[in-house]
Amino acid sequence: MTQDFAFAVHAHDGAARTGEIQTPRGTIRTPAFMPVGTAATVKAMFPQDVRAAGADIVLCNVYHLMLRPGAERIAELGGLHRFMNWPHPILTDSGGFQVMSLSKLRKLDENGVTFQSHIDGSGHVLTPERSMDIQRLLGADIQMQFDECVRLPCSDAEAERAMRLSLRWAERSRKAFGGEPGRAVFGIVQGGAVKALRVESVRALADMDFHGLAVGGLAVGEPQAVMLDMLETVMPHLPECKPRYLMGVGTPDDIVEAVARGIDMFDCVMPTRAGRHGLAYTRFGRVNLRNARHADDPGPLDAESSCPAARDYSRAYLHHLFKAGEILGLMLLTQVNIAYYQELMAGLRGAIGQGHLADFVAATKTQWSRGEGSV
Amino acid sequence: MTQDFAFAVHAHDGAARTGEIQTPRGTIRTPAFMPVGTAATVKAMFPQDVRAAGADIVLCNVYHLMLRPGAERIAELGGLHRFMNWPHPILTDSGGFQVMSLSKLRKLDENGVTFQSHIDGSGHVLTPERSMDIQRLLGADIQMQFDECVRLPCSDAEAERAMRLSLRWAERSRKAFGGEPGRAVFGIVQGGAVKALRVESVRALADMDFHGLAVGGLAVGEPQAVMLDMLETVMPHLPECKPRYLMGVGTPDDIVEAVARGIDMFDCVMPTRAGRHGLAYTRFGRVNLRNARHADDPGPLDAESSCPAARDYSRAYLHHLFKAGEILGLMLLTQVNIAYYQELMAGLRGAIGQGHLADFVAATKTQWSRGEGSV
Repeated sequence: MTQDFAFAVHAHDGAARTGEIQTPRGTIRTPAFMPVGTAATVKAMFPQDVRAAGADIVLCNVYHLMLRPGAERIAELGGLHRFMNWPHPILTDSGGFQVMSLSKLRKLDENGVTFQSHIDGSGHVLTPERSMDIQRLLGADIQMQFDECVRLPCSDAEAERAMRLSLRWAERSRKAFGGEPGRAVFGIVQGGAVKALRVESVRALADMDFHGLAVGGLAVGEPQAVMLDMLETVMPHLPECKPRYLMGVGTPDDIVEAVARGIDMFDCVMPTRAGRHGLAYTRFGRVNLRNARHADDPGPLDAESSCPAARDYSRAYLHHLFKAGEILGLMLLTQVNIAYYQELMAGLRGAIGQGHLADFVAATKTQWSRGEGSV
Repeated sequence: MTQDFAFAVHAHDGAARTGEIQTPRGTIRTPAFMPVGTAATVKAMFPQDVRAAGADIVLCNVYHLMLRPGAERIAELGGLHRFMNWPHPILTDSGGFQVMSLSKLRKLDENGVTFQSHIDGSGHVLTPERSMDIQRLLGADIQMQFDECVRLPCSDAEAERAMRLSLRWAERSRKAFGGEPGRAVFGIVQGGAVKALRVESVRALADMDFHGLAVGGLAVGEPQAVMLDMLETVMPHLPECKPRYLMGVGTPDDIVEAVARGIDMFDCVMPTRAGRHGLAYTRFGRVNLRNARHADDPGPLDAESSCPAARDYSRAYLHHLFKAGEILGLMLLTQVNIAYYQELMAGLRGAIGQGHLADFVAATKTQWSRGEGSV
């Protein structure tokens, strides 16, 4: 543990909590949503607009960056923060998830994964040690252990094998991380949809010297009820004093439910990906701007939003941009969605701080279900 | 003529001049470069960034907007300025150029052009009267006569036929425009690459009651020398007291040469289109960011630029974004190019005002030829 990385819970409301993670590059207010900047860019957004939307931290992907432009190159260029013009905290995943979902001809053994790049077929090896080395080269403020994430549904035997391998890789990852001043490394709970495996995983990880713990292998195809069930199984065993990160989640509703159960950090491509497909997340629920009924709607997505993209452009114009295939449409809706996710997180933090999370959640869900707020 | 639209030349330097066009929506400093916002968006740029780059006016295309989303729809939504969130001056072309280059199954006669949309094959008619009606519905501050633009090279007979038709359409366009307070309509000189036709065209248009005159049918495939030759043929006949607009031009070098010959206004897709293809226009000339030699270059495009996109991102990062097909690459280079074009126009205006245009042009061209300014 280093003195520069710290986490403090400021308030509880039931199982939910709000607090702050301190890093040398800035404070992360929790619960936090981390926009995903896969290839060193939050797609279709200027970094200053990601910041202005309220993001304290972004996530970048080791798998993508190791293949292109390469971790050593980014290190020589001064590190990932300078490279992508984002001076605030960055969390990197370990590459474990995407090497299994994106790469070709992969071979997994005790040592790690040998695979071919999906970009050019070049051969690569990822091990716990190499993953931590890449994350160090990138300069990530929060680094993740190398793990194996299985898709759901899967057999119990498969879930158990991957969970135990991930635990051994957790030890190797923690050792390889060493003690980088001001930086943190998180372990990842696995175990598929098997409660006993999840409990075994979280107990083992809680005994290791990680700065935070993540719950992985959820939101990978299972119903929300299964995800929440696994979360409730794991939560009692997560150390109170460390940040808890639910990886790859999720919809606004998923996030609200997970915050209520005590999760502190989230990441998901949903707001950015949906934005590029014409889907807006707003206080009034999800709006599909491709729908013809917006063609003549002079109203903005949310006249009271602090986000210019939600406030200063009509739904008719946004509809037009998507019909015409204009890049500005992707830019505006990505900004709308990242801003809404951040607004939601700020609302959750405020509600927990004031002890009325249940009211906030009820009001938020009512407004989502009430509809689109225009026409 | 209305009192709200006015043009004043503040200084001359040889044939070049600098001045201001006054419109109810704001002042246009000349010489001016108008970014092209084809479908009611300057591609890949937020309107506030177009403004911040220094643009006083943008151009939009009647042909595209009449087909999608439709002029009547935009009028019902409050006009083009509100639609695209650009409260500053807008010039619309007449549709004449693109109906000939983009539409399908077109039939041209004295009345106008009957054609099918390139988007959905639907049938449409453009006449001088309908073009002016569309431009009025859009609410354009500066409107253009409906004309026929022939591609070069073409036969003298073809150039003559199109020029005379365009003159008859000029009269019909001027009449259809009527007298809209605060708005202006420009005539368009045609005549291909035939000097006598160009002179006949400009003389006839100078006698009509237009607020400004444009030179059309250039930069359509001919060498720069032919374009400048035609320009020099036309310039003595253009009224001194009216804005002179060279349509569809051009490269920074084309613009410098045309300004030196007395042109006040330009538009071109080059900076935006080039930006989307990885080409940056800078004080150091044109830079192809796709080139592998930028992969490790930590330097920005222009460390002294006032444009954040040119100043705050390394060439290595821009190269990475284009290699990875990231939208942020298009966004940044479009901004770089629009900012450089505006910086060039500001430089030209200042140099003319101080009477040292020749020195400015020489220094600018020397810096272009000196190369890329990094590595």
